[in-house]
Amino acid sequence: MSRERRSGGRRGKSTRSGGSIEQLPWQQVKNTYPAFELLKPEQVDQLHDTSMRILSEAGIRVMGENVMDLFEDAGAIVDRDSKTIRIDESIVAAALETVPFEFTLTARNRAKQITLGGNNVTFGLVAGPPNVHDCINGRRQGNLTDYQNFIKLAHHFNAIHLIGNQVTAPLELPANNRHLDTYQANLTYSDLTFHCSAIGHGRALDGINMMAISRGQTPEEMKGDPGVITIISVNSPRLFDDAMGDGLIAMAEYGQPVTVTPFTLMGAMTPVTLPAALAQQNAEALFGVVLTQLVNPGTPVMYGSFTSNVDMRSGAPAFGTPENAKANIAGGQLARRYGIPYRTSNANASNAVDLQAAYETMMATWGAVLGGANIVYHAAGWLEGGLTASYEKFILDVEIIQNMIEFLKPIKFDADELGFDAIQSVPTGGHFFGAEHTMARYETAFYRPMLSDWQNYENWEAAGAKDALQRATGIWQQALRDFEEPAMDPAIREELEAYVAKRKEDIGSGEP
Amino acid sequence: MSRERRSGGRRGKSTRSGGSIEQLPWQQVKNTYPAFELLKPEQVDQLHDTSMRILSEAGIRVMGENVMDLFEDAGAIVDRDSKTIRIDESIVAAALETVPFEFTLTARNRAKQITLGGNNVTFGLVAGPPNVHDCINGRRQGNLTDYQNFIKLAHHFNAIHLIGNQVTAPLELPANNRHLDTYQANLTYSDLTFHCSAIGHGRALDGINMMAISRGQTPEEMKGDPGVITIISVNSPRLFDDAMGDGLIAMAEYGQPVTVTPFTLMGAMTPVTLPAALAQQNAEALFGVVLTQLVNPGTPVMYGSFTSNVDMRSGAPAFGTPENAKANIAGGQLARRYGIPYRTSNANASNAVDLQAAYETMMATWGAVLGGANIVYHAAGWLEGGLTASYEKFILDVEIIQNMIEFLKPIKFDADELGFDAIQSVPTGGHFFGAEHTMARYETAFYRPMLSDWQNYENWEAAGAKDALQRATGIWQQALRDFEEPAMDPAIREELEAYVAKRKEDIGSGEP
Repeated sequence: MSRERRSGGRRGKSTRSGGSIEQLPWQQVKNTYPAFELLKPEQVDQLHDTSMRILSEAGIRVMGENVMDLFEDAGAIVDRDSKTIRIDESIVAAALETVPFEFTLTARNRAKQITLGGNNVTFGLVAGPPNVHDCINGRRQGNLTDYQNFIKLAHHFNAIHLIGNQVTAPLELPANNRHLDTYQANLTYSDLTFHCSAIGHGRALDGINMMAISRGQTPEEMKGDPGVITIISVNSPRLFDDAMGDGLIAMAEYGQPVTVTPFTLMGAMTPVTLPAALAQQNAEALFGVVLTQLVNPGTPVMYGSFTSNVDMRSGAPAFGTPENAKANIAGGQLARRYGIPYRTSNANASNAVDLQAAYETMMATWGAVLGGANIVYHAAGWLEGGLTASYEKFILDVEIIQNMIEFLKPIKFDADELGFDAIQSVPTGGHFFGAEHTMARYETAFYRPMLSDWQNYENWEAAGAKDALQRATGIWQQALRDFEEPAMDPAIREELEAYVAKRKEDIGSGEP
Repeated sequence: MSRERRSGGRRGKSTRSGGSIEQLPWQQVKNTYPAFELLKPEQVDQLHDTSMRILSEAGIRVMGENVMDLFEDAGAIVDRDSKTIRIDESIVAAALETVPFEFTLTARNRAKQITLGGNNVTFGLVAGPPNVHDCINGRRQGNLTDYQNFIKLAHHFNAIHLIGNQVTAPLELPANNRHLDTYQANLTYSDLTFHCSAIGHGRALDGINMMAISRGQTPEEMKGDPGVITIISVNSPRLFDDAMGDGLIAMAEYGQPVTVTPFTLMGAMTPVTLPAALAQQNAEALFGVVLTQLVNPGTPVMYGSFTSNVDMRSGAPAFGTPENAKANIAGGQLARRYGIPYRTSNANASNAVDLQAAYETMMATWGAVLGGANIVYHAAGWLEGGLTASYEKFILDVEIIQNMIEFLKPIKFDADELGFDAIQSVPTGGHFFGAEHTMARYETAFYRPMLSDWQNYENWEAAGAKDALQRATGIWQQALRDFEEPAMDPAIREELEAYVAKRKEDIGSGEP
C-alpha cells in the first residue's frame, strides 16, 4: 500500500498570494443525477395518508380571522371557538393544481436570476442569528456593520444565490423598523434576491416595495416576475400564528413566493419517530401551501422542511444528524410527489467552527442535495444551532457548497475524455504530467478549492502551519478588502433612501 | 424564522462523565438503499469497452515470469522481451465466472465475522503511514507502541471492522521482519481480521500462518474459510511489480482474498479526465482479478478503487475532492457490473485534523457509501495524504463512520411509527417531551454521537469551551484506559510467540 500515499509533490504556489480569492463563477446549479429515494413509494403514500388524517381529523389551529374566512369559503370545517381548521384531501388537491412546478426570482441584476423548482439547486445565506462571531473579534451581539459585512460576503462569493431573512439582527436599531435598514443593505451591497420578513403585513410589503424600486418597477409590475421570497415558519405542532398568516397573505397578494416550513424537531415539536415527524411536516406544509393558493391561485410556493431531532437527554436541538440527513432526503420525495419546489437546510449544532461544525454541516448538506433541495437555506454562516452568524463558518460553508456544485457537474463523456490514445501514449509505470492530453486540459481539469491546502507537510509547516480555520479568517478578511459594491443608478439609490426615511416616519413608534 | 433556532434546551448531562465512551454496538452494516447511479448504463459500457482495448491493445507490464506463464497458459499474448501481457475479453469473462459475489472474513472471534460483497459495508483502519501524530505528543516516526495503541483503539471501537496493512510502520524494528511484530500485535490486542502485507510471498504466508494459529487451525483448514486479506496496489499506469505479484499468488494459493487496487491519481498516473481514469482503473483492476482466478479459480477477490486527482499546480495528491467522490460512486457501478465485491477509500489531504480534514473525509465517505463500497479502507486515522496516522483523526473518523452507519439504518415504518394518535394527543403549539409515545422510545430514538457536543453555548463555555479536536484527545485517551485485551488461550499465545521467534531466526538478515 506504500504507493497510496502522498509522495511529496511539486512545490505548490498559493493562488491567494495575489490578493484575489479563486472561486467558481456565478451559476444556476442543476442536479441532473437520478433522485435518491430513501422511502419506498408505498411509504410515501402512507405519509400522505397520515398527513391527510392530521388535516381532516386533528386539524390546524390558526390565529387570524382572515385565514378562517378563506378556508371556510373553500369548504373547510372551521371551528371559530377553538380556531381550528379541518380540511379534506379534495381541498389540498384543488390547491395543488395551481402551484407552479418552478418559478424565478429576479433581483436588480437580471443576470443573477435564479430558478427554483425542478432540478435547480440554490444556496442561501444564514438567517436570523442574534449573535455574530469571528476569530479576531470574538462573539458579540448582531449589529448593522456585521450585517453589512455578511451581505458583502454573500455578494462577493458566487456560491451564494440568495440572502436569507436578516443574516444577523442589528440589535442596536429599533425592532419596529430595522427591517428597512437590512433591506437597504441587501439592495446596496448586493444584487441578489432576498428574503422578506413576514412577521406581519408591513414588513413583507416593505420588502416587495424596495425590491420593486431597485428594479425600477412598481410592485404591481413584479406580480408575474417575483423579486423577493419569504418563509412562513409553522409553530409546530399544528399552529399558524396570525403575524405569519398576515405576512403570507401580503406576499401572495403580490404574487411573491412563500416557503412554508414546519418547525418539526423530533421529540419536541413532533413525536420522536421519523415517519410521524414527516407526516406532521407534510400536513403543516400542505396547509400553508393551500392557504397561498386560496389567497391568490398560482402564487409560487415552496415546500419547506426543517425536520431534525433534539438531544433527548437535554432537549437541545440537534442538526446535521443522521436523522436530519434522512429527513432532508425523504422531505424531497414528498415535495416531488406534489410537484412543489423544495426548501431545506444544512444546519449544525456546534458552538465553535470546529470538526463537529464541519461534519454535521456535511451530513445535512449531502442529505439536502440528495433530497433534491431547490433552496438549501442557512447554507453559509450558521453556527450554535442558529444563534450565531460566523464569518469563518461562512467561508467553510462556501467551500462545502463549491464542493457540492462541482460534485453535481455531470461527468463529460466522449472519446477524448475516455482518452484511450493518451493512455496508450504513456509508458507503463510512467506519468501523465507532460502528456499532450493533460497539457490541453490541466488548467480546468479539476476543482480548485478555496480553503483546502494541499501542500506537503514540510511546505505547509514552513508556511506557518495554518490550519483551515486560520486560513478561513484570512479569506473573509481578503474578501471584504476585495469587495466591490455593485453599481446602482443614483436616482434609484435616492428613491430607496427616501422610501426608508418616509416609512420610518410613518411607522413612528408603532408596528410596521 | 426566529423559531428555527436553538432555544436553550434543558441542561445536558455528559455521558462521558462516568468514564466509558458511548458507542454503537458491533454490527455487520448493510446498505439497503437503492444504488446511486452517477453513470448512465451506456457510459458504463463505454468504460468497459475502453478498458478492454487497454488490456488487448496497450497491455499490462508485469515483472514476474510466473505471472507471464500463467497468462500464457490462459491464451494471452505475452511479449517476454517487453514483459507485456495482452488479453482479450474472453479471458476476462472466463475469470469473472469463478469470482465469488461475496465472501466472509473470520478472525479468531467468529462473532466478528464480516461479509464482503453484496450490500455489506465495512470500515477499515488506516494503513501504511510512516508517521504518527496526536495533539499531546506531536508528530513522530511510527513505532511499535503507537502501532499497538492504534490496534487497541480499533478493537475498542465497534465501528472498525478490520485492520489495514500496518497502521503505522514501526520504524525502530528491522524492515525485513517487522511484519511479524505487527501481525502479533493485531492478533494480541484485537480479535479482528487483518490485512497481510503482500510485498513478496513470505510476508503474505506469515499472515496466513499466524491467523491460522490464532484460530487453532492449519493454513489448509483456512482455505475455504478465509481469515486475512491483502491489497495489491498496481503501479499505475499498467505495471504490476513482481513482489506484488508474488504476494497475490501466495494469497490465492491459500484461498485468502486479494484486493486489486490501481493507484490512479488523475493527472499523474492517469489522464486528467475521469472517464479515462476509470477506464484505466478498470483495466488494471480486472487484470489483477484475472490473475487471482488463474492461480486458483474461486479465490475471493475485490475490485479496488483509489481514483482521485492531483493538484495540477503542484503535483500533490488530493483526496476527498468532488472528483474523488464521483470516482468512488462510478467505481462501484463498475464493480457491480462484474459482480465483484468493491473496495474504496475515504481519504483526505489535510496536514492537520482540521475543517479540511473533516470536509474532505466527508466528501469521500459519502462517495464511498453511495458507491456501494463493501470495504471503506483507510477509514479511520488517515492524515497528511496518508503520511501520518492521527489519533484525533481516528476519533473524528469513528464519529463520521457511526453517522454513516446510522444513516444506513432503514427507516422503521408501521402504524406506531407513523404516530397519528400521538400527534392528535398533543395540543397545537404544545410539545411531545412527556407524551407516552415519546416516553416509550426516547432512550433509543436517535443516534447519540460520541464526539458532538450539543450543549447550549453558555453551558459549553462554562464546561471549558472545548472544541471537537480537544474533545477527541480526551476520547482516545479514555479509550486506551478503557481498553480490555481480548482473552486468548495461553497455548495459542505461546504458539504465536514461538512462530514469530522461529521466523525471525529463519529470516535472519535476508528477505522474508
